[in-house]
Amino acid sequence: MSNRIITVSREFGSGGRELGKRLAEAMEIPYYDKEIIAAIADRSGLALSYVEQNIGKGFQPYPIHYGRTFSLYGVGQDNQTKMLIAQQQILQELAEKGDCLIVGRCADMVLEEYNPFSIFVYASLESKMKRCREKAFPGENLTDRELKKKISQVDSGRMQYRRLLSDKKWGDKEAYSLCVNTSNMTIKNLIPSLSSYADCWFKEKQQ
Amino acid sequence: MSNRIITVSREFGSGGRELGKRLAEAMEIPYYDKEIIAAIADRSGLALSYVEQNIGKGFQPYPIHYGRTFSLYGVGQDNQTKMLIAQQQILQELAEKGDCLIVGRCADMVLEEYNPFSIFVYASLESKMKRCREKAFPGENLTDRELKKKISQVDSGRMQYRRLLSDKKWGDKEAYSLCVNTSNMTIKNLIPSLSSYADCWFKEKQQ
Repeated sequence: MSNRIITVSREFGSGGRELGKRLAEAMEIPYYDKEIIAAIADRSGLALSYVEQNIGKGFQPYPIHYGRTFSLYGVGQDNQTKMLIAQQQILQELAEKGDCLIVGRCADMVLEEYNPFSIFVYASLESKMKRCREKAFPGENLTDRELKKKISQVDSGRMQYRRLLSDKKWGDKEAYSLCVNTSNMTIKNLIPSLSSYADCWFKEKQQ
Repeated sequence: MSNRIITVSREFGSGGRELGKRLAEAMEIPYYDKEIIAAIADRSGLALSYVEQNIGKGFQPYPIHYGRTFSLYGVGQDNQTKMLIAQQQILQELAEKGDCLIVGRCADMVLEEYNPFSIFVYASLESKMKRCREKAFPGENLTDRELKKKISQVDSGRMQYRRLLSDKKWGDKEAYSLCVNTSNMTIKNLIPSLSSYADCWFKEKQQ
């Protein structure tokens, strides 16, 4: 049986990270997210905070076609390339090593050849704003307008990041195995059925 | 507890009708699909075959905003309007009467005010072609090109039909509670987890 690889892409405020963590726990699959940033920093020799802030940003010199070969090698060894190469290697090592669930990082594209169970998590703007407010740091009092702008900026960054690696558009349902609308849902209540759906998906994949 | 209303929209060849039927059976919810056509024929006084072939086709005289009021009344009492009004009434009566699962008919839009659990079923073109070939009538030997054209035409009709009733685009994930990619999946194996997901969704809705 091949490794169970799950990727979670998500809109900001949709509860996607929580969904990923809980699903990994329920399925007893190792969960990776920010650990990957640390490993990228380690491998690229760049500072953790630098990697955190810069990976995947403001870098689109050439259209890059991503597939079984990794064409970034030809683009030039600046820091962005270093980080993306390190990330590619780390994600592939994780996928080779065993089961894994990865939130973000365009993992569904980077690991496309492993045919992951790929989830996209989304919600209505209203619901995302509510979730953001519930999870805000104490003292973070964004106006509705500021919060909407933040949500749109984060998602637009994710969209651009994906464009680095794929010609499939971020959030287009065709690219995902399952798209989950979490509007007004309590994430943890969705986990048993999502876990059972994923089990079923992996069984079908084996056949 | 309010009635459990489930709507299934689907790409041609994605197995959406089978999914709807099986899900209704598993959840013990009455399933309606072609029965609705018969009721429309009955109520509008038009022939069944006429209704089957014409409902929702070639009719877009005005942009229609669909909501709690039904604005088609103002458009003119031609046959298309008669059929759509009958359909609207029948779907609403079903939703008032009790639990129901409806495949197609833009039921997610017509019944929007009931806040249905709305599923969109889709698949890769390759997978849809395979499914169509498995279900083809004996002697129906379409070439790949003909089959692709058929799939695209049926879906384009569904898209236009939806435009009659809503400004939300057919197939855009935002309009649905859950979008299920059935590529290479055996529909019946997905039912237990989908049924459990729907149960959970209805429980959350009650709160």
